[in-house]
Amino acid sequence: MTIAAETTESAARSRLAQSARAETGRHTTSEFHEWLDRRRAAIAFDVEHLPLGDLENWSRDSDSGDLVHDSGRFFSVRGMRVSAGDRVGTGWSQPVINQPEVGVLGLLMHEFDGILHALVQAKAEPGNAGGVQISLTVQATRSNYSRVHGGAPVRYIEHFVGTEASHALVDVLQSEQGAWFFHKRNRNMVVETSQDVGVHEDFFWLTLAQLRSLLLVDDLVSMDLRTVLSCTPLVDSADDSDGESFDAVVRRSLGRVSTPPAVAGETLRWFTDAKANTSAVATLVPLRQVDRWTVGGASICHQTGRYFEVVGARVTVSGREVAQWDQPMIAPCGVGVVAFLTRIVDGDARVLVRARREPGFMDLVELGPTVQCIPGNYAHLPVEHWPPYLDLVLDADPADVRYSVALSEEGGRFYRALNTYSVIEVHDDLAAAPGFRWVSIGELAALLVHSNYLNIQARSLIACMHALW
Amino acid sequence: MTIAAETTESAARSRLAQSARAETGRHTTSEFHEWLDRRRAAIAFDVEHLPLGDLENWSRDSDSGDLVHDSGRFFSVRGMRVSAGDRVGTGWSQPVINQPEVGVLGLLMHEFDGILHALVQAKAEPGNAGGVQISLTVQATRSNYSRVHGGAPVRYIEHFVGTEASHALVDVLQSEQGAWFFHKRNRNMVVETSQDVGVHEDFFWLTLAQLRSLLLVDDLVSMDLRTVLSCTPLVDSADDSDGESFDAVVRRSLGRVSTPPAVAGETLRWFTDAKANTSAVATLVPLRQVDRWTVGGASICHQTGRYFEVVGARVTVSGREVAQWDQPMIAPCGVGVVAFLTRIVDGDARVLVRARREPGFMDLVELGPTVQCIPGNYAHLPVEHWPPYLDLVLDADPADVRYSVALSEEGGRFYRALNTYSVIEVHDDLAAAPGFRWVSIGELAALLVHSNYLNIQARSLIACMHALW
Repeated sequence: MTIAAETTESAARSRLAQSARAETGRHTTSEFHEWLDRRRAAIAFDVEHLPLGDLENWSRDSDSGDLVHDSGRFFSVRGMRVSAGDRVGTGWSQPVINQPEVGVLGLLMHEFDGILHALVQAKAEPGNAGGVQISLTVQATRSNYSRVHGGAPVRYIEHFVGTEASHALVDVLQSEQGAWFFHKRNRNMVVETSQDVGVHEDFFWLTLAQLRSLLLVDDLVSMDLRTVLSCTPLVDSADDSDGESFDAVVRRSLGRVSTPPAVAGETLRWFTDAKANTSAVATLVPLRQVDRWTVGGASICHQTGRYFEVVGARVTVSGREVAQWDQPMIAPCGVGVVAFLTRIVDGDARVLVRARREPGFMDLVELGPTVQCIPGNYAHLPVEHWPPYLDLVLDADPADVRYSVALSEEGGRFYRALNTYSVIEVHDDLAAAPGFRWVSIGELAALLVHSNYLNIQARSLIACMHALW
Repeated sequence: MTIAAETTESAARSRLAQSARAETGRHTTSEFHEWLDRRRAAIAFDVEHLPLGDLENWSRDSDSGDLVHDSGRFFSVRGMRVSAGDRVGTGWSQPVINQPEVGVLGLLMHEFDGILHALVQAKAEPGNAGGVQISLTVQATRSNYSRVHGGAPVRYIEHFVGTEASHALVDVLQSEQGAWFFHKRNRNMVVETSQDVGVHEDFFWLTLAQLRSLLLVDDLVSMDLRTVLSCTPLVDSADDSDGESFDAVVRRSLGRVSTPPAVAGETLRWFTDAKANTSAVATLVPLRQVDRWTVGGASICHQTGRYFEVVGARVTVSGREVAQWDQPMIAPCGVGVVAFLTRIVDGDARVLVRARREPGFMDLVELGPTVQCIPGNYAHLPVEHWPPYLDLVLDADPADVRYSVALSEEGGRFYRALNTYSVIEVHDDLAAAPGFRWVSIGELAALLVHSNYLNIQARSLIACMHALW
């Protein structure tokens, strides 16, 4: 690369970092809350549960039993079979959402008075527990924005497709829930425009510091916004150190992404080993063929009542072009726990990552949080059969819980999928169990320019860590 | 990462670079050639063509028509269907090799008199045009080396699996031919041992400089050795510049891998765009269902006679534990062209890469050479329908052809799959066609620590460039 390109990258990074420090921008935080209250009052949302067989425009394919939209659009609920290669008897099957398109998750930015601002949207989704969330400027599938099936234009999409997109500050494909989606990936984008942008009433300009601080509020920042924020460098390596507190070290560590790639060599080789040692193969199969799931009834559920259910929803909304629709949704059976154990070593913040095998990943293994589970799935088992470190997270000394906020997974597909996201400081030299590794959070942040490394829960936690300072 | 880890990485790099400069090591190059002649005389190899229906232990699955080994082991020839998402009528289907295991491609190294040496193997494969090639210490599939099906132990495999592997100098999963394999990946490893290693008569210690120089010889260095060499950093950033010749600039550029990841941001974003804009999905289907291929005869071939054939081979070999076996092989219809157009800009070597959609890639798109094709497939078409830049490569001024060597693809699966690998210097400011991009070769070398970026032909070319200096 030329020196000019390097300078551009570095300048972009500084400007993002500057916005991440700007606690007031075009609007004050109280103006934001007034706007949010107005949007909450304006957007009325109602979700009624229906048996899957009663969903309008959805039906079972007569051959496969798959749950499909009559138009062939949107997504389908199919089966996924995981065969564990040479390990006999360890495979399983489950329902899964198949949506083979790459969508755009786009955050539009514009400079006001020398400070970059992000255009966020007040958006309600049927699965949201609290109704309206703060989300991205654009969330759209390819057939959505290319309007191959007609439909209203997607607001602001012109900034993310076509020529201007080549000037993106962030543009990377990232995976979504590998336990619920088959090979789903979205394009995480941050694009700056120099044009004047008309602001629709559902949209609002915030500095990145204002946005960061919203991550301290329960169930407010959407999953899609969190993943895009995680891929956005918010700390400049030039940011000055401000002490040795946990939060200060985390901030500094997040900015340490300019280390040579070779530095992460040992971590990458450990990750290769984890990938090479899984011989599992996941394939789509007819929904009718999944074992141990009841697929013919009002909902699709596991015989034990654990994991998740596929339920039917009738959604009625005001303030959108489509007033009512039906759709299936995945409803997890219980509130989940997503946590990073974090340790400060020699002034650097490290987290304990797990090489997670989620069958829906394109690459089968990605790096996930220390703990990511629904504890209710293990309640019938003795502690020694719980996922590693779950007991440490559940029993953590409150003084060591540096972050703990309830956040939702994407409310367009998942019904009330709430997780408690937490960052827990450990003080001992805790050994990494097999499949786990202590890595610097600067290394993780550096890996976010690539696909197939951090799963969406780990990315959310990286975004949450930006709220600490 | 700690400073200690950083120092270890950097020290490993220096030692590899030192070996890549050591033109004489434990053995002289003429001793090497004497050994190679002896091995060529000792290893007798005979391949007889048989109709697929006559192959012993191979048969067609009665349902799918797939060509499978009676034991269920090794690999199978299945069908692959590529649907082009929302672009109607652009899909196709073809036969493909399915071998879902991750194998080990391992190069063992040991220090003699302060210089790292690589343990290469004289290895014959049925598809090799010239019989014996120089290959890796170990090439083994998982079921091979874990001996789940019995069989002789794989020589030197203990250095690559188990605890010592964690000290690998190189360990990364890389793809293989996406036009012929479905989701095939192997683990590219370089492992140093401090133990004394007994040298079997088929093996020989070479410095990396000696190995590099063998890349100037037609059809001598195997594909598997080339891909592992491409992932091995052979140039130290501390290597001093030795002039402004093409070769010197290429060498220096290959060593420029320690730029911050952010520097490659623009290239990565271009690559994301290429991946996001393909909505193709490739799936395995029964071989019986492929269109426009004749699958029932003595060989499997395309109706036009182009692309490749699946042929039957009876292999008789001396000097191995198994004296005779039958197998299907892919035989490409003609000699291929694989080339990088290369340009020196401001003392940096850049190559014109193509974002290639090969259906068998896990991620559908990887970076490939400027030209990668069998010209014979296009001979019936006017030049304007040839692959971009093919005419420039075929008509290049001999003075601009900096490297041109005929090399084989892997002879265990591919029958006489020869390509002319070339590096061609261009002097003009040649514009990149859509889907192409000029990138620094230092950037490419930096991407080789990750999976899913460079295809195997591009990796071979990177290895070849190491032969230039």
